[in-house]
Amino acid sequence: MAKLTVVGLGPGGAKDMTLRAVEALEGCDLIVGYTAYIELVADQFPDKETLTTPMRKEVDRCRMALERAQQGRSVAMVCSGDPGIYGMAGLLFELAEDEFSDVEIDVVPGVSASNGGAAVLGAPLMHDWCTISLSDLLTPWEKIEARLEAAAQADFCISLYNPSSHKRADYLSRACDILLRHRDPATVCGYVRNIGREGQEAHVTDLATLRDTAVDMFTCVFIGNAQTKVVDGHMVTPRGYLQRED
Amino acid sequence: MAKLTVVGLGPGGAKDMTLRAVEALEGCDLIVGYTAYIELVADQFPDKETLTTPMRKEVDRCRMALERAQQGRSVAMVCSGDPGIYGMAGLLFELAEDEFSDVEIDVVPGVSASNGGAAVLGAPLMHDWCTISLSDLLTPWEKIEARLEAAAQADFCISLYNPSSHKRADYLSRACDILLRHRDPATVCGYVRNIGREGQEAHVTDLATLRDTAVDMFTCVFIGNAQTKVVDGHMVTPRGYLQRED
Repeated sequence: MAKLTVVGLGPGGAKDMTLRAVEALEGCDLIVGYTAYIELVADQFPDKETLTTPMRKEVDRCRMALERAQQGRSVAMVCSGDPGIYGMAGLLFELAEDEFSDVEIDVVPGVSASNGGAAVLGAPLMHDWCTISLSDLLTPWEKIEARLEAAAQADFCISLYNPSSHKRADYLSRACDILLRHRDPATVCGYVRNIGREGQEAHVTDLATLRDTAVDMFTCVFIGNAQTKVVDGHMVTPRGYLQRED
Repeated sequence: MAKLTVVGLGPGGAKDMTLRAVEALEGCDLIVGYTAYIELVADQFPDKETLTTPMRKEVDRCRMALERAQQGRSVAMVCSGDPGIYGMAGLLFELAEDEFSDVEIDVVPGVSASNGGAAVLGAPLMHDWCTISLSDLLTPWEKIEARLEAAAQADFCISLYNPSSHKRADYLSRACDILLRHRDPATVCGYVRNIGREGQEAHVTDLATLRDTAVDMFTCVFIGNAQTKVVDGHMVTPRGYLQRED
């Protein structure tokens, strides 16, 4: 049966890949992906044929990869982070069912931006947490608002993806306003830009300040829960081990 | 300055480690961890000294690792999955601040059980999702209930950690009962046991059936959102690319 492997590259540089991801790329003969991700792997696998498409052409890119697999090529599609977290895994399964039922999809998970960014900041996601994308390209804003509201009320730690874009410059402020209805303005927050890449930048701040902070689309934002604290410059959410000892 | 590296091993076998994790273990001279995790790495790094402690001795284990680092040893502490997701990263930062302020903590993130289990099932976490532990050892059950309720209402995909133990045999049923107040009994669910290890087992089911399913503590459980569907035997949550095309 024809097979397509979708491979998570991890959040940053080549060292964030798993051994299974390296093996999958070594074993394929064609690597497909968004231009920026292909550039990340081209140096590491110089003898592989590559096929790139620009951003926002997700459906075309996945169809192209499935077609090549159907033709008998050994195809690996690369995604940054984890292909199963805001990546291409789901779309590939859907397209395969509809149009390429003879292609089997294999998912190689990766370290996602939430996990990678959290490690840079310290340990902000040590307790129950959720991930919300602020992009309303595919999701109605009302649904995003309802999720922010629910996450704030139930005191989840939160990682925010796509916190900004040219068209959505004020979305992070709007999200913080919703969170501030239920959470202390002093809630510890953080954000990491270019996780694991050149120019990586990490900042620890509070929710009130975050509301008025400009971040770009290469940034992952973290909101603490009511227990999150600053520990020696790091953002840390206690799991409760020491508190149990008291 | 003395340094301690806390390393995520990923969810399963040796191939789920990142290159950075391998490098960290190669570079250290003492590996500390819970007995089961030490067994996982002992074969791969046979020349390293190891120090193990049984489960539930988290605070002792972290203090031991910090003491060795303070004494000048090059210490790596290993966790399964990601040390920043229900792992030891947060506790190490807290202890370092209180008792070992001369030890610097470095976190090497890993593929968490959520990401690894999702890849086995298909692509269940492709939209906004949250992670909730059903263990009430460190968290009051009322707080866990409030988070389940909020997640169900706002239609998050959910990954559940620690869905069962000897003392908490009915916790998954209780959690499903809360979810069923807001979600369709036909909601697609899945669970994976022994992710990436020998005896790996994956099942796709629905919320009503999951309520009456017995799972053990080595299982990660996934609840879909209202759009999650079964695609050729896989659990897949659409992100919305094809729906946008319609």
